[in-house]
Amino acid sequence: MGFDPQSEVFRVHEGGKLSVRSTLPLTDRESLSLAYTPGVAEVCTAIAEDVSLAREYTWRSRLVAVVSDGTAVLGLGNIGAAAALPVMEGKVALFSEFAGLNAVPIVLNTTDPDEIVDTVARIAPSFGGINLEDISAPRCFEIEARLRERLDIPVFHDDQHGTAIVVLAALRNAARITGRSLGELRVVVSGAGAAGVACTKILLAAGIGDIAVADSRGILHTGRHGLTAVKEELVRLTNRAGVSGSLTDALAGADVFLGLSAGAVDEEAVATMAPHSVIFALANPNPEVDPDVAHRYADVVATGRSDYPNQINNVLAFPGVFAGAFDAGATAITENMKLAAAAALGDVVGDALTPDYIVPTPFDSRVAPAVAAAVAAQARTDGVARV
Amino acid sequence: MGFDPQSEVFRVHEGGKLSVRSTLPLTDRESLSLAYTPGVAEVCTAIAEDVSLAREYTWRSRLVAVVSDGTAVLGLGNIGAAAALPVMEGKVALFSEFAGLNAVPIVLNTTDPDEIVDTVARIAPSFGGINLEDISAPRCFEIEARLRERLDIPVFHDDQHGTAIVVLAALRNAARITGRSLGELRVVVSGAGAAGVACTKILLAAGIGDIAVADSRGILHTGRHGLTAVKEELVRLTNRAGVSGSLTDALAGADVFLGLSAGAVDEEAVATMAPHSVIFALANPNPEVDPDVAHRYADVVATGRSDYPNQINNVLAFPGVFAGAFDAGATAITENMKLAAAAALGDVVGDALTPDYIVPTPFDSRVAPAVAAAVAAQARTDGVARV
Repeated sequence: MGFDPQSEVFRVHEGGKLSVRSTLPLTDRESLSLAYTPGVAEVCTAIAEDVSLAREYTWRSRLVAVVSDGTAVLGLGNIGAAAALPVMEGKVALFSEFAGLNAVPIVLNTTDPDEIVDTVARIAPSFGGINLEDISAPRCFEIEARLRERLDIPVFHDDQHGTAIVVLAALRNAARITGRSLGELRVVVSGAGAAGVACTKILLAAGIGDIAVADSRGILHTGRHGLTAVKEELVRLTNRAGVSGSLTDALAGADVFLGLSAGAVDEEAVATMAPHSVIFALANPNPEVDPDVAHRYADVVATGRSDYPNQINNVLAFPGVFAGAFDAGATAITENMKLAAAAALGDVVGDALTPDYIVPTPFDSRVAPAVAAAVAAQARTDGVARV
Repeated sequence: MGFDPQSEVFRVHEGGKLSVRSTLPLTDRESLSLAYTPGVAEVCTAIAEDVSLAREYTWRSRLVAVVSDGTAVLGLGNIGAAAALPVMEGKVALFSEFAGLNAVPIVLNTTDPDEIVDTVARIAPSFGGINLEDISAPRCFEIEARLRERLDIPVFHDDQHGTAIVVLAALRNAARITGRSLGELRVVVSGAGAAGVACTKILLAAGIGDIAVADSRGILHTGRHGLTAVKEELVRLTNRAGVSGSLTDALAGADVFLGLSAGAVDEEAVATMAPHSVIFALANPNPEVDPDVAHRYADVVATGRSDYPNQINNVLAFPGVFAGAFDAGATAITENMKLAAAAALGDVVGDALTPDYIVPTPFDSRVAPAVAAAVAAQARTDGVARV
């Protein structure tokens, strides 16, 4: 590890990972006069008279800005804008590879929410959608909410909602395997950051009534003080049994453990879960519960790792979500659109469902079109579609 | 004209003109784990420890942001961000086609200079250089100056400096043809907007001492009141003869007419110019002096049009200027670098010089490399190079 310019990972990153090219040849005066002056003036004039034509005659309507302030990058924390750029380039490459969408990485040298919101809003006419990425909690909640309010294009914080969509898809299929409905499950969520909050909310929306959320100080309950606004909201929405104590206390009798932090859970605690349990231990590279241990107690185990079955990988969600939103000309990504994405993603597995195959693999080419179709249809149902 | 979806210009603009693609294949787990997680974390960590590595291991160091607020687009005026986007896409295509550089169009929904400067500065870590485009005068001068002060990457307002570089290159060759040195020429500049100001300054820097600048109200001179700061500066720097009056008054006995506005000049005024004069009538699509009329009086005539000889086209400058700046890892584009670009551009013509061939054609593949080499060498001489 460390900086070794001879290693493969540094060699493949030389000069960066992206290229912007013209889709038109510009090889003679005629092509230049169509794509640029004087011909382009006709297109500009038409858009100036009817701004909705920008959807059809510019690249913006299918273009994603991948925006980060570098404050919560992978497991590395607040490494800043420049150091975050290789991740954002990679994310752009995934948009291209998995959904054929154009995207551009935008890293910001400010971490102030007001400045981030203003900056993104001012560059928004350049783009058709905003994918927020690796912005630390709780700032990410406010930034996303304010941008959703201010912009009429999709705004989607992937660390929240991409994870939530894939988790819900996987959990629906895990419930099918164990013969239970979502409403019967008692779920423990470990982590109240971006992913923990969004997963909790989507599971509630999907009908799971009994969820306990634990942060690093234990279960969120009405007796906790000094909580952030988002955690206060979780206190209101979750923990209907009113339990307090540690994560370990919450696990006793639980059906589902959803690990969204690096906090390890020891075997004794896992052993107290209900029979036929489900363990999603998503911390990378070290799952909260060792997969071998998890398999001793749970019927279904998922991780964030590519070298185990059932990888919970956001790439199963975000390319199709944006593609579907763009297909419908959606002005926003609604909660129903996320639920529809999760249902469509889970359905790709179909009859091939087994305990080791509850979500498609990242390279399953059926995924993005299926998610996109469901998201676009839901956008039209929800009245946020332009086309 | 007008919006006709069946016309060729609208058909070629469908879906926009640009595409972003990964330079690495992402077709299996191994490639994904190098370009994205977990491999990319090594690159992020290295950059977090030494930010200069972002030059080598991201795409930013050879990436241009083409930034506009849509206030002075082509001859269309203030048409706004959305309507400006097709031009900016075209500009990006030119960066790619003529210098192999990546670029991204960024259109802003603010016209406030403070907000523009703040916004561009905050997204600057995403880019290696800023090409300001189609921002109206006099705001463009302040915006560029403040961004140059604030950022350690090249900032270049093409409407000013791209035009100025090509004009100087062309005028040097025109002077060669007419057997005079630049210092001997008396020049009249029509227009004190972005191009007029920048051309005047580069001609002064190149050794032309006698320049009169006229705006829509006549010659700039010490008796004029209520001028903008930039025009006040031009009053101090130009008009050493202290003439006043109209553009027509200035033209009497002048060696060079440089038209940078749409203000037509009639034949009687042209007829008063000195023998062996030079006329650059650069307004598009209607040159200030009809080229046929100009040829009756001038030894050398240039326009902005592609269907006449001697087209003064910014594409002869900006691709090579940014390529050279990037080659040297330049922290800025100095005045000397612009002069070097003009000299190199003019020299491409070489011994093929004729009155109808004072600048290379836009598709001359020698241009960008020659300009880039001169710009990079000058960056090193000027001490603004990182490599």
